[in-house]
Amino acid sequence: MSGLRAFDLDPADLHPSLDGPAPVAVGFLNEIMARHPRAVSFAPGAPHPRSYADLDLGRHLQRFLTHAVQDLGHPPDAARRLLYEYGPSRGLINHLVADALHRDHGIRADPEALVITVGAQEALLLVLRALFRSATDVLAVAEPCFVGVTGAAHLLGIGPQAVPETDRGLDLDALLAACRAARRTGRRVRACYVAPDFSNPGGNRMDLDARLRLLRLAAEEEFLVLEDNAYGFTAAPGRELPPLKALDTEARVVHIGTFAKVCFPGARVGYVVADQRVRTPDGSATPLAAGLARLKTMVSVNTSPVCQAVIGGMLLEHGGSLAGPVGRRAALYRRNLAHLLDALDRQAAEGLPPGISWNRPEAGFFVRVALPVRADEALLRVSASRYGVLWTPMAPFYLGDGGDRALRLSCSYLEPERIEIGAARLGAFLRAEARP
Amino acid sequence: MSGLRAFDLDPADLHPSLDGPAPVAVGFLNEIMARHPRAVSFAPGAPHPRSYADLDLGRHLQRFLTHAVQDLGHPPDAARRLLYEYGPSRGLINHLVADALHRDHGIRADPEALVITVGAQEALLLVLRALFRSATDVLAVAEPCFVGVTGAAHLLGIGPQAVPETDRGLDLDALLAACRAARRTGRRVRACYVAPDFSNPGGNRMDLDARLRLLRLAAEEEFLVLEDNAYGFTAAPGRELPPLKALDTEARVVHIGTFAKVCFPGARVGYVVADQRVRTPDGSATPLAAGLARLKTMVSVNTSPVCQAVIGGMLLEHGGSLAGPVGRRAALYRRNLAHLLDALDRQAAEGLPPGISWNRPEAGFFVRVALPVRADEALLRVSASRYGVLWTPMAPFYLGDGGDRALRLSCSYLEPERIEIGAARLGAFLRAEARP
Repeated sequence: MSGLRAFDLDPADLHPSLDGPAPVAVGFLNEIMARHPRAVSFAPGAPHPRSYADLDLGRHLQRFLTHAVQDLGHPPDAARRLLYEYGPSRGLINHLVADALHRDHGIRADPEALVITVGAQEALLLVLRALFRSATDVLAVAEPCFVGVTGAAHLLGIGPQAVPETDRGLDLDALLAACRAARRTGRRVRACYVAPDFSNPGGNRMDLDARLRLLRLAAEEEFLVLEDNAYGFTAAPGRELPPLKALDTEARVVHIGTFAKVCFPGARVGYVVADQRVRTPDGSATPLAAGLARLKTMVSVNTSPVCQAVIGGMLLEHGGSLAGPVGRRAALYRRNLAHLLDALDRQAAEGLPPGISWNRPEAGFFVRVALPVRADEALLRVSASRYGVLWTPMAPFYLGDGGDRALRLSCSYLEPERIEIGAARLGAFLRAEARP
Repeated sequence: MSGLRAFDLDPADLHPSLDGPAPVAVGFLNEIMARHPRAVSFAPGAPHPRSYADLDLGRHLQRFLTHAVQDLGHPPDAARRLLYEYGPSRGLINHLVADALHRDHGIRADPEALVITVGAQEALLLVLRALFRSATDVLAVAEPCFVGVTGAAHLLGIGPQAVPETDRGLDLDALLAACRAARRTGRRVRACYVAPDFSNPGGNRMDLDARLRLLRLAAEEEFLVLEDNAYGFTAAPGRELPPLKALDTEARVVHIGTFAKVCFPGARVGYVVADQRVRTPDGSATPLAAGLARLKTMVSVNTSPVCQAVIGGMLLEHGGSLAGPVGRRAALYRRNLAHLLDALDRQAAEGLPPGISWNRPEAGFFVRVALPVRADEALLRVSASRYGVLWTPMAPFYLGDGGDRALRLSCSYLEPERIEIGAARLGAFLRAEARP
């Protein structure tokens, strides 16, 4: 304790997840965005402000209260109290979300198999906690991987193992090899995290054949698939693919979703479909969701019924489906993505150093750019201060030392003219600073 | 996997915290309350419905938006977007909560030393995760202990150690002995959880001398005090005692609070004051709260800004202090407690079996009753089905096998006439079923 005052804490005494790559990267990005408010930021994967235009919290709350009285039979005063009191840990709007999952995604889920969570992040934490019991359980993650997954695993002391993601999605041969390698060392792949549609940050998508093969693999190798559906809604009409959960006939898939992008992030409402059966001591079985709800009492007790009612009201207003408003939002995101890719192409036409390339996702929020130099925090500072453009380094999305020569561009919340300006600044930056 | 279908999960394969005493007890109580809707329930520590009478979500939101525009300088559209977008993990209303803590509790906290959490439960989880790094770190808890603490510890793989709570609060001699015993075995008491005011479920209170001695002990033995302030507000005027955090001159206390009881549970808004300094690599220091906010990105990302704004609006409406509305609520709870103790006394006057006694807390939500027989789930079923009265067994609040002959009565949300009826039913039940 040398040199410390009595009330100082030694950082080496705190849990290592506080300073894991995920939270540190998020903190760094927030700091640099605050320091460069006039830069064009391709960093945050935030929804577009226009998606808030039709939001009216009071109207949505009222719509839910009308439903609680007219459809659920609550006296008006009791309906109002639903918003104010504690509620069931499993949730208040499970029936509405289950209906919407069926209408919008072809997922058939018993409301009892759902838990309404504080965003998708809490759902991830609960599922990882429930499924991982011992150090012999391996969590396979598509790499690059959303930092919310690796961060939650770190918090729980679960060490994930990377399975590469290719332009066609998760590398299933590598996943199979990981399962076999684990078994040889007395361990097992317990679950595999994947975002089959326009993953964050990779931007990749699995085709239908790959989805079906992943499900077969899960059955053969006896692991669960943790499906993150955050960006599937951005697919173009006619180009939608069924989520893994809609194809899942053996309850191998735990499906995690959020209303952050399709409604609004401030609601902090997500959900998990966990219909896996768990035996009870009396010989019957309950869905895994019941266990997740018990765990939730130790994390957040229950998701705010006010927030659930706002989302429930939005669902009710659109006849139990979000297809209409979501379709309009998806079109906006595809428009932005097309703008970004066009603007990058124009920069390429004006000349860029060799070794710079990017993927061309059909949809989603993200584009990956490969550089011939390290895309680290130091380079980001240069980009911000000299060129007025921000992006996200890819390295924190890798477990090992991959991704150090790549960056992620997000175009979800910008207007086309800002995308244009940002791409021009990025071009200038790349021409000057990204020479091999 | 004998006898299991492919999609069944073996409960022995899931994390043990799913079936810890805390979540199982909560699940059992919910089930028995649902099965006996007409019973008088002394089980849940829920706020009184009258405390929702002056709630108007729209008005509170508007009040916060006015503040964001007039006092914080946001353009109106940006203020509105604060509610809809992601926000900082540390919170949006830290300045308002810090002000209220000073006015209402004498706690001086920099807004930077606060994190706004999804209720007190998330605050507990974050603090435990941050502070407990290795198996040599011991969490001491006042026993009987709020199940949210032991449940969160279990989820994180932290094994708590019990320190008895007496009628005068935490047994400080036992705590000192626990510190010394830990040190002798190469471990250390890293933190001690205590609710100094009308603890749940014990109903006990620490006097000022005991508070000061606990702080001295924390400094001498180098542990942190995790103070839970959920019930302090119920003290009678003139009988308030300073929270430990208001007496804390060495940043030994992490202070955890919630707006669930003083505003409403459905907001799911709590907070943690963590002003302990943690050194950064560049030699400066940040408050522990900054680390907790980083951890929060892996649990819930951020607390719903809609919910924060409702609470912020309520604070603003009352001039930055909740003393007025809280005082009225506290009076209601003390009235209920007096009714319950009077009604129990009348039952005693009519005769009760030997070996039945109860404590007489000055305030809070809870009364403890000692029985000459086991107050287990089987006895609760008898009480519910034959006598129409529910209570909470005390055993789940104990780490070991204590508390098996005690029950907890909560009177917070009932009307006096229901308390009267419930006490009469309880008397009949005790006379018939609690004979030694």
